[in-house]
Amino acid sequence: MKINGQPYRTIHPIGHEIVQIIDQTRLPHAFEVKPLSNVNEAAEAIRHMLVRGAPLIGAAAAYGMALATKQGVDEAWLDDSAAFLMATRPTAVNLRWAVQRMLNVLKPLPETQRHEAAWFEAAAICDEDVALNQAIGRHGAEMLQALYQKKGRPLNVLTHCNAGWLAAVDWGTALAPIYTAFEAGLPLHVWVDETRPRNQGASLTAWELANHGVPHTVIADNAGGHLMQHGEVDVVIVGADRVTATGDVCNKIGTYLKALAAYDNQVPFYAAVPSPTIDWAISDGLREIPIEERSADEVAWVQGKTTQGEILCVNVLPQGSSAANPAFDVTPARLVTGIITERGIAAPQAMKLLYEG
Amino acid sequence: MKINGQPYRTIHPIGHEIVQIIDQTRLPHAFEVKPLSNVNEAAEAIRHMLVRGAPLIGAAAAYGMALATKQGVDEAWLDDSAAFLMATRPTAVNLRWAVQRMLNVLKPLPETQRHEAAWFEAAAICDEDVALNQAIGRHGAEMLQALYQKKGRPLNVLTHCNAGWLAAVDWGTALAPIYTAFEAGLPLHVWVDETRPRNQGASLTAWELANHGVPHTVIADNAGGHLMQHGEVDVVIVGADRVTATGDVCNKIGTYLKALAAYDNQVPFYAAVPSPTIDWAISDGLREIPIEERSADEVAWVQGKTTQGEILCVNVLPQGSSAANPAFDVTPARLVTGIITERGIAAPQAMKLLYEG
Repeated sequence: MKINGQPYRTIHPIGHEIVQIIDQTRLPHAFEVKPLSNVNEAAEAIRHMLVRGAPLIGAAAAYGMALATKQGVDEAWLDDSAAFLMATRPTAVNLRWAVQRMLNVLKPLPETQRHEAAWFEAAAICDEDVALNQAIGRHGAEMLQALYQKKGRPLNVLTHCNAGWLAAVDWGTALAPIYTAFEAGLPLHVWVDETRPRNQGASLTAWELANHGVPHTVIADNAGGHLMQHGEVDVVIVGADRVTATGDVCNKIGTYLKALAAYDNQVPFYAAVPSPTIDWAISDGLREIPIEERSADEVAWVQGKTTQGEILCVNVLPQGSSAANPAFDVTPARLVTGIITERGIAAPQAMKLLYEG
Repeated sequence: MKINGQPYRTIHPIGHEIVQIIDQTRLPHAFEVKPLSNVNEAAEAIRHMLVRGAPLIGAAAAYGMALATKQGVDEAWLDDSAAFLMATRPTAVNLRWAVQRMLNVLKPLPETQRHEAAWFEAAAICDEDVALNQAIGRHGAEMLQALYQKKGRPLNVLTHCNAGWLAAVDWGTALAPIYTAFEAGLPLHVWVDETRPRNQGASLTAWELANHGVPHTVIADNAGGHLMQHGEVDVVIVGADRVTATGDVCNKIGTYLKALAAYDNQVPFYAAVPSPTIDWAISDGLREIPIEERSADEVAWVQGKTTQGEILCVNVLPQGSSAANPAFDVTPARLVTGIITERGIAAPQAMKLLYEG
């Protein structure tokens, strides 16, 4: 999507040597492009969330494998690199999917072809992701268009965390329907949950919507229920790190609370995901999805910009208080109106139908 | 309660001239006592939330009227001062209650007795508040004790915002049962919602629990639902700015989301309030309680302490993004297990019984 009127992708290669990413830890206050030149830098970028969001993590891991082939192409090195990349974020199913796909492509090839093939395959993963998200955008925008016809006034869409183009290669998942509808001229406004503790909503979603020109308002994570009670939210669209075969949605911590409020106020609640995010092997999200517990420092320290224009962190906790930081939660399928995928929109219990026949 | 082992109240007079308060906007990083010497300073302290929390706002407004009698005691001045104080926080029912009580006491008296009587009455309001909260603490602690017997392991209590002793004159409302049970030796741990946008949980609740020695952990407001899904919350206790005759609970924004999660996971949800917080004149909280919309700056700017020990604010929003800031929400009575008052605990629909006969 656009930054200052200029179209961008979140990740792109320079030849077969370097991969450029946007350092998302510096947003929204500084826009900095960062080069990755080896698998270790790719892993660090994933681990420290310079790149984040399920699809982008997958793309970055694929390029991590491509970068690995600069140092070696034998099976042991590829396996080591794959394991190293997979260990960076335990919850991200796209990461494992992308790395496994790279291994599946590379291992059968003669060693001399692996370097070239790795860069080709990583690019293909990115292009496919863009195509997937465009399809998600089309299906989601149709839903928004229908809702707009029904309401007869500009739509208010609430989203949590960042499942925008910054979380993918382009377009995003949850925001793809919004961008697509916006580009088609549908009048809408987005409520952006700030999404503590890492503030991806305030930092990333607001930033990308502002740069693309989409009307939006940031709210504390606490506010969404109240807005729904008063008819100020027409639909909720979130992304997901993992969706079970039964339609349970594992997404950023706090998603479950918004789903409860949406259900309580008859507001439709959608998760927008590309197919690789659906984990057909599991059916009980609450029992089967391990939830990453991240550092208490993410709760304690808030990054922002001072009145002097300096970007720094401040501690919001008293001395002697500690914090807990579960990073994701699981929204049971019973609270989910539909899953928006590149194949269309289905209720959780009908999701399998999109993938059969 | 205690700070460094020393018992404190949040507000106390020095003679009939000055009222000392704790500047709560400086917590948790600095503990500063501030003198108020006239009604204007009292109003500013309420408006800018140097004092906050329903009962303390009432106490501060009462002392605001006492301070006003230093400048004049005629009816017109008292009425003006009362109106001036009442205008500082539109949602706070205790504020109006306390100011009206001061007027009711002062106006029938000869002018020569009004100054003396005002200071006496403000002190009485404070002492009564302490007694109310101690009674709330006793009733709530009995509930916690019963829950502890049932669970047979240390209790995890979740609270939102600050309804502790810092919000009252002493003990607090939601935290009174916790302090009372803690003092009685009941093993417990408190999950403290940080409570964006003003962070009263992280700044005030955590600070007072830490100073009194009560085990606690701060969490992002997003985390409570997940914790409840996994059995890590045994009970939720919150305060309230206003409770309707039917048991709808108006409290800090985000309370409704926690009540939904508690209901969804069969976790009991209590609001602890002194009687003046119950507004017997209204029965539909969602329609009848006006919700204060506060400044977007409260969402944009986060106060904390730098690594250098400096207390300052940082902006977490991108340039070009605005914020909305509804300060309260209403939790419908159907989600409320019970209201804890100084008279006992009652289910919302049975609340009136505590006040009849």
